Amino acid sequence: MLVVMQQGAEEAQIQKVIDRLTEDGFDVHRSTGTIHTLLGGVGGKEQFDPALFEQMDGVKEVHRIVSPYKLAAKAFRPEGTVINVGGLEIGGNNIVTMAGPCSVENRDQIERSADIVAEGGAQVIRGGAFKPRSSPYSFQGLGEEGLQMMREAADRRGLKVISEVMDSTQITLLSTYADILQVGARNMQNFNLLRELSKIRKPIMLKRGPSATIEEWLLSAEYILAGGNYDLMLCERGIRTFETYTRNTFDVSAIPVVHKLSHLPIIADPSHGTGRRDQVPPMARAAVAAGADGLIMEVHHDPDHALSDGAQSMYPPQYWELMKQLRLIAAAVGRSI
Amino acid sequence: MLVVMQQGAEEAQIQKVIDRLTEDGFDVHRSTGTIHTLLGGVGGKEQFDPALFEQMDGVKEVHRIVSPYKLAAKAFRPEGTVINVGGLEIGGNNIVTMAGPCSVENRDQIERSADIVAEGGAQVIRGGAFKPRSSPYSFQGLGEEGLQMMREAADRRGLKVISEVMDSTQITLLSTYADILQVGARNMQNFNLLRELSKIRKPIMLKRGPSATIEEWLLSAEYILAGGNYDLMLCERGIRTFETYTRNTFDVSAIPVVHKLSHLPIIADPSHGTGRRDQVPPMARAAVAAGADGLIMEVHHDPDHALSDGAQSMYPPQYWELMKQLRLIAAAVGRSI
Amino acid sequence: MLVVMQQGAEEAQIQKVIDRLTEDGFDVHRSTGTIHTLLGGVGGKEQFDPALFEQMDGVKEVHRIVSPYKLAAKAFRPEGTVINVGGLEIGGNNIVTMAGPCSVENRDQIERSADIVAEGGAQVIRGGAFKPRSSPYSFQGLGEEGLQMMREAADRRGLKVISEVMDSTQITLLSTYADILQVGARNMQNFNLLRELSKIRKPIMLKRGPSATIEEWLLSAEYILAGGNYDLMLCERGIRTFETYTRNTFDVSAIPVVHKLSHLPIIADPSHGTGRRDQVPPMARAAVAAGADGLIMEVHHDPDHALSDGAQSMYPPQYWELMKQLRLIAAAVGRSI
Amino acid sequence: MLVVMQQGAEEAQIQKVIDRLTEDGFDVHRSTGTIHTLLGGVGGKEQFDPALFEQMDGVKEVHRIVSPYKLAAKAFRPEGTVINVGGLEIGGNNIVTMAGPCSVENRDQIERSADIVAEGGAQVIRGGAFKPRSSPYSFQGLGEEGLQMMREAADRRGLKVISEVMDSTQITLLSTYADILQVGARNMQNFNLLRELSKIRKPIMLKRGPSATIEEWLLSAEYILAGGNYDLMLCERGIRTFETYTRNTFDVSAIPVVHKLSHLPIIADPSHGTGRRDQVPPMARAAVAAGADGLIMEVHHDPDHALSDGAQSMYPPQYWELMKQLRLIAAAVGRSI
Repeated sequence: MLVVMQQGAEEAQIQKVIDRLTEDGFDVHRSTGTIHTLLGGVGGKEQFDPALFEQMDGVKEVHRIVSPYKLAAKAFRPEGTVINVGGLEIGGNNIVTMAGPCSVENRDQIERSADIVAEGGAQVIRGGAFKPRSSPYSFQGLGEEGLQMMREAADRRGLKVISEVMDSTQITLLSTYADILQVGARNMQNFNLLRELSKIRKPIMLKRGPSATIEEWLLSAEYILAGGNYDLMLCERGIRTFETYTRNTFDVSAIPVVHKLSHLPIIADPSHGTGRRDQVPPMARAAVAAGADGLIMEVHHDPDHALSDGAQSMYPPQYWELMKQLRLIAAAVGRSI
Repeated sequence: MLVVMQQGAEEAQIQKVIDRLTEDGFDVHRSTGTIHTLLGGVGGKEQFDPALFEQMDGVKEVHRIVSPYKLAAKAFRPEGTVINVGGLEIGGNNIVTMAGPCSVENRDQIERSADIVAEGGAQVIRGGAFKPRSSPYSFQGLGEEGLQMMREAADRRGLKVISEVMDSTQITLLSTYADILQVGARNMQNFNLLRELSKIRKPIMLKRGPSATIEEWLLSAEYILAGGNYDLMLCERGIRTFETYTRNTFDVSAIPVVHKLSHLPIIADPSHGTGRRDQVPPMARAAVAAGADGLIMEVHHDPDHALSDGAQSMYPPQYWELMKQLRLIAAAVGRSI
Repeated sequence: MLVVMQQGAEEAQIQKVIDRLTEDGFDVHRSTGTIHTLLGGVGGKEQFDPALFEQMDGVKEVHRIVSPYKLAAKAFRPEGTVINVGGLEIGGNNIVTMAGPCSVENRDQIERSADIVAEGGAQVIRGGAFKPRSSPYSFQGLGEEGLQMMREAADRRGLKVISEVMDSTQITLLSTYADILQVGARNMQNFNLLRELSKIRKPIMLKRGPSATIEEWLLSAEYILAGGNYDLMLCERGIRTFETYTRNTFDVSAIPVVHKLSHLPIIADPSHGTGRRDQVPPMARAAVAAGADGLIMEVHHDPDHALSDGAQSMYPPQYWELMKQLRLIAAAVGRSI
Repeated sequence: MLVVMQQGAEEAQIQKVIDRLTEDGFDVHRSTGTIHTLLGGVGGKEQFDPALFEQMDGVKEVHRIVSPYKLAAKAFRPEGTVINVGGLEIGGNNIVTMAGPCSVENRDQIERSADIVAEGGAQVIRGGAFKPRSSPYSFQGLGEEGLQMMREAADRRGLKVISEVMDSTQITLLSTYADILQVGARNMQNFNLLRELSKIRKPIMLKRGPSATIEEWLLSAEYILAGGNYDLMLCERGIRTFETYTRNTFDVSAIPVVHKLSHLPIIADPSHGTGRRDQVPPMARAAVAAGADGLIMEVHHDPDHALSDGAQSMYPPQYWELMKQLRLIAAAVGRSI
């Protein structure tokens, strides 16, 4: 930690800060400049609130030096993490694609969806079983029955399954049917859930909260890693900004930033990232060009009658065509799909 | 719902939209203008996704006309809601104040806190028992023991208790010790939790999510009301913006906006809203001047050594002085504290 | 400046940073910790780009220590600035109020407006003569004729005049008719204009840009002060956020923050800050309660037919009533209106 | 325009809205539903303030139906605009690249830059002659001398020149030396400047303001088109969000959105969009994959000693390598570089 004292800070104020740092176990390095005195704190408590020091008399600014996350940091595993999901590698040279409907609606729909997904070449089928919606009056999902239908549809076609876990009580159920458990954007800071997920041995995909900085996202990742679950991937799905044309602003730049700061694979979700079917193909291409390790996209056999998220679900031919383009872009950046 | 067709939309496209509206149960009013054809849909499914229509060929724009929330709307109870918490009215002419430390840390701390709170004239003591922190390495709260200590400290001084419920499994425990259950900002869209809280008969305080629009907040309120729990108050606690000097941007304007759109009482939290002790008094005064029905504020007997949120906790004399100022402002707007 | 080297940074990398700092005239203090090496730079070039150092090999983080603004900083004049506008003090104990229509529309309108303004007790009349609008097809203002009308209306009632200067070519004209020149939000970083305004001796009111941080705003203020014009006040008028119910989010917290960081008076503009007439009174009250040194508000004798900004202009009785409330709030915070 | 009356609006209130619409020249279509009465206004004044109606008694919501921009809309020229800059086409199948230093610093620097730019295959050289900086103490540009140097360096290598025009007084000077005049982000709503630029016959590149919605950006474009200058291209350069790791959030999704709403070519500026050299290559690739018609990027022969924006300027080999990758991505989306 570094404390910058105000111009003209009194010796007593400086001493009080030094005492407080020492109290917290820091070795203090003092550097007296012509304008400001700097106090560098090394060692000391890992967890402290820099804002506390900011409010002390005579203090100008406080900077935290050590990253608040460690296991999620690039330095922890500079070569990058590759997750093995029953033989499917995520984070390697191959860019993994996950596709499917927003929700599992009935057996016919999920079977058709699985056909479409497999035909396009995706390796993982997605589909929600629990759909808590922002309005209490909307379709809320099929629950376990839906998961079962999706698992069967996937198995018949050699697909893996990803589905969202809403709270701790669903972990066991989801683990029975899905290969990857997804933590939704709204749960990115549901720390009880993260802690429980850190104890299981199932791959997790952690979505970025719509107003979470990349640092906060990596801190949430740290929760899962700290418990011993290293099979973790991140998923960028759009952030909230002032722009209203798109539902969210899909932050493509988060992809190279995550690659710089962390070893975790990063998946892009252009469906939620834009909220509009016509924006999904260009943003999927952009994500691959920017270095994404995977994509998760919504596709539905009849988006006009989907029970949820129809507006952002691609028509099957749109998805098939996109997959062809993505293969060309992947090759252009030295990867494969 | 209103669908505006593009200039030059073809008759077949218009017909397709009419058919889709009819299919969803709408009575369709068609108005053919010189530039645009408008299709007004009355009645019909309550829940539909306007974005679905936006993506149909020939459609320019879609506007939802009926509010997505009903029970939370002003029209439902134009005279406003007054909640009775064991004799303490919230939402009436008197502005309620809640104060206390971020977390219950030990018996000595909570007893001192209760003295400070009572001396300042607040009617409710606050204190967290479960502290899920953004870093997995921080103090995580005392749990039930903390609640018990706070209840006892409150009872000895005739104070009510408010404390945060983190997930559904804690509802019973919290209900035993607290008079008001607080839903934190990160849980504003934890719909499973909201649904469970709608079934109990305890007053709830629902905090606004840091990136939630006021409409989304009222939709979350609707979840609780829809289940039959009408003892609900809202709490503004700052939104995330580009400004970094304050931890959040405390949205004072949300107070009169909520009063315009809804009948629910609104409480202001200038401690989380600003994240800085020195900003709390001016923003508390602003909130009362803007019409807040209550305040919730952090105060600690020794903020420099608080285990959490010390930087935003007021020193006791600061809090006592503030309470005096607030009484003058309340009088200026025709209310009392 | 402080450079924090990465864990494991090589000696050659550290040396390269030291050399670069020395090249820029910094005295370098090196502090070798167990994890990170810190390099403190004292003295050196005032202007440098911290991002340049951030990109050097082995560098983890760079912190700027000296504020980028000096003349605008609190330390420059801790007692605060009081501006004398022909006998009217701005920044003192009295809270100044400015009111009037968005645009000067014609002689009748500005005379009626002046009556209304004076009756309410405001000391300054506002009104735009040049109205560059976001659409090229809207009313664009009366120009010099409008300024002349407003000056005459003001003089007859002993009011001061404030009006907006759009670019450097208008400075002479505006200076002839107005007592205070306003720099609009869109021009906050029009540095050519700021530089020209720094050379004149007229009070300036500098509005905050809708996406400007407080630091950037103070840097723009520095431009005007650096040229020798010290009669400068700031004006908070709302920032752009994700919330769409209000046109902007009126950042009341900017008021105490500016008072903490700077000696410049701060005026609040709740009309542009909210964009809605019904939100102006509560936010005006909040601004005074939070410590604003003045208010600028839109009022129109017939807002329903105003040529611009009618929706945010108060009706005269609304304004008169508000002025009464504001006097009570001012008294509650130890000031007068 | 569409006005939605509140549930239970009185007949007198409805009539007042009808009268006001008629007064403004609208043909009114009334549709009385069981819950809401809708009033559709067709024809009428092009410019009106929907917020005015929103504040009338009994009104629930107001929706503007006709786009506020016309000449910038896709419908005006569905085939898209191709600009001819002295033989170089912008907006066609070929993706144009512009590169060069942030500022022209001296003859040696701009000659070296021109070599680097040309070697990489860019067709346009960029460089600022006037550098208004957010701090008044920074390097402010070489002015005309710099423009002359850049023109000569460009001519020797067959490059076109783009440079920024800061205000109306610089238009003639800039037009003498540059082939394309750039309007900076801070000037996007400098309507006086836009109006002057609409009268000349030089291609213009209009950058998006950091807090401008896409609709506001197109309205600014309308100013230039409305005056008769159709040689206009847009430039996305990042928007301001809560994320602080990157200087701005580069909004890649603006590219397909502009293509959907408008016929104007869109250029991407990943240098300002990210503010970090290491993020430029992935975001340049993303922009091309998303459909950008061109790129403008900063490259410097010695970024570590650049007088401005060094941190976001690429090293020459980085730029050359990027150009190779971009050719592959362009081919993957059916275009060329």
